[in-house]
Amino acid sequence: MKKIVNDPTNIVDEMLKGMIVSHSELIQRVPETGVIQRKAEKTGKVAVISGGGSGHEPAHAGFVGEGMLSAAVCGEVFTSPTPDQILEAIKVAEEGAGVFLVIKNYSGDIMNFEMAQELAEMEGIEVASVVVDDDVAVEDSLYTQGKRGVAGTLFVHKILGYAAQQGQSIAEIKELADKLVPNIKSIGLALTGVTTPGSKQPSFILGDDEIEYGVGIHGEPGYRREKLQSSRDLAEELLTKLTDEFGEKEEKNFAIMVNGLGGTPLMEQYVFTNDVYTLMKEQNLTIDYYKIGNLMTSLEMQGLSLTMLYLEDDFYIEALQAPVTTISW
Amino acid sequence: MKKIVNDPTNIVDEMLKGMIVSHSELIQRVPETGVIQRKAEKTGKVAVISGGGSGHEPAHAGFVGEGMLSAAVCGEVFTSPTPDQILEAIKVAEEGAGVFLVIKNYSGDIMNFEMAQELAEMEGIEVASVVVDDDVAVEDSLYTQGKRGVAGTLFVHKILGYAAQQGQSIAEIKELADKLVPNIKSIGLALTGVTTPGSKQPSFILGDDEIEYGVGIHGEPGYRREKLQSSRDLAEELLTKLTDEFGEKEEKNFAIMVNGLGGTPLMEQYVFTNDVYTLMKEQNLTIDYYKIGNLMTSLEMQGLSLTMLYLEDDFYIEALQAPVTTISW
Repeated sequence: MKKIVNDPTNIVDEMLKGMIVSHSELIQRVPETGVIQRKAEKTGKVAVISGGGSGHEPAHAGFVGEGMLSAAVCGEVFTSPTPDQILEAIKVAEEGAGVFLVIKNYSGDIMNFEMAQELAEMEGIEVASVVVDDDVAVEDSLYTQGKRGVAGTLFVHKILGYAAQQGQSIAEIKELADKLVPNIKSIGLALTGVTTPGSKQPSFILGDDEIEYGVGIHGEPGYRREKLQSSRDLAEELLTKLTDEFGEKEEKNFAIMVNGLGGTPLMEQYVFTNDVYTLMKEQNLTIDYYKIGNLMTSLEMQGLSLTMLYLEDDFYIEALQAPVTTISW
Repeated sequence: MKKIVNDPTNIVDEMLKGMIVSHSELIQRVPETGVIQRKAEKTGKVAVISGGGSGHEPAHAGFVGEGMLSAAVCGEVFTSPTPDQILEAIKVAEEGAGVFLVIKNYSGDIMNFEMAQELAEMEGIEVASVVVDDDVAVEDSLYTQGKRGVAGTLFVHKILGYAAQQGQSIAEIKELADKLVPNIKSIGLALTGVTTPGSKQPSFILGDDEIEYGVGIHGEPGYRREKLQSSRDLAEELLTKLTDEFGEKEEKNFAIMVNGLGGTPLMEQYVFTNDVYTLMKEQNLTIDYYKIGNLMTSLEMQGLSLTMLYLEDDFYIEALQAPVTTISW
């Protein structure tokens, strides 16, 4: 896999330098760290922080800004940030009302975020957290106990970021998060594997006419390989998996996210979106909010994921529709 | 090349349907056409319109909205929209102050936009236009007399869209456009070819360690193939070509655009941006505005382009920094 890179071991540092010079009105970097912090006046509200390994851009640094994340902690490629980096983010983002951590369900992330939480609490900072495990494809995985955290995490950023901006307390945000996360389900499919910078080989290799359902955002295995189907058949497979998870609901209203994994063009993402729309309409499921694009990627992987958020609470849609000042939302 | 698609011959129609359902608060489609129109109150100002073949998403429909384009005309993949479609766009976008067409320099686009202009003028609508030919890589090309129009076109959309929003007349916008376009220079490089939907083969094939400088956004040939270099060396090559074109300038201030061609992840785009920043700083060239991302793509092609806009007039930077309401700017 050809890549536009200098030294692969330095790729995250150079990426962050490029981000900072390009968006200096919005974000700043805590020197010598992978912490990206928003440039905004501190107003004594809860700070919402997320992060994880790099390689998923624009997640998470692209979602730092007013109304969304206070800071993002960027680890090396597909590698959890260290506890001291997360602690640094907590300390710089803290405004006096506590810090809320949004953690994707990977063993390394959970261990390091929890350690940072303990260290911050020892320094007298109030910290709470939620673990996002929206990927319904498989139970347990290469780096995960239980279900993986993927693109649905961005709905959590958006909704909790809005709650914080509205002045909700850390206890209220914790309650909101615990109710929100089970309402978010995602599932992906890959047309190609993904090659980390410096590696010679992709994580897995698919045939010229083959796809894999349920692949993770680090190239973790999915649940089935088969010949590439039409967009409509792909949409039907993913949608069925998701609606099966939700079961029968009283209300029929959802927000959806069609997320490109990095190498799939917008044209295909919109064709797929049209199929999701048509299929959901046939099932009398209403889509009240759409988010389409490369949001939680896996480097240059071709493929996409579908996320559904069950709009159990009117607050979710109010939060999704609120304006933000970020690079990429 | 695997693609998420149903019927390749219907891909643009299905993409537009997906766009419309996803962004119904911002845009609407003129029924039975490839015309995407903004949903905004008409206020008697000049309407700026652009368009061309599809396959470059988010260009151009992603840039329809207040402060930018009034409408975009979406042709089939890599195929100019027909004169009647362009005429339809002119008629629906017109607010009484005339319509300004931004045309990328491809023979088919020029022929069809000019024909539509004549037809509209026969119906009493005042129309003016500019042809963008920012790609300095080669003189003449597969589909072009002179230089190709590529990503720099988006700076034209943004600046003319702002001028229109400010209430400039069509004569003023024409004068602005004629002065602006020679200040914009672009050049690209490809790591892979591009395969149109339904085709079995890409437009060209590069070796596993090979790149091509100067490739066009439809896979048109560039000016040199060689082994993949470091990001910094790639940046130096592209930057040198651009600064050579500009020659000696009194002021040293530029806006830049690093544009992903569809299959290159944001991580690599930011690494490259950091190299451009460093090299320009060494040459005492100042960057006053950055735009980074997949903006004028070539389906799933891996590669990127660099655009420099010489900030000859303070109005350019004012226009670039003004807020807009679009899907993708």
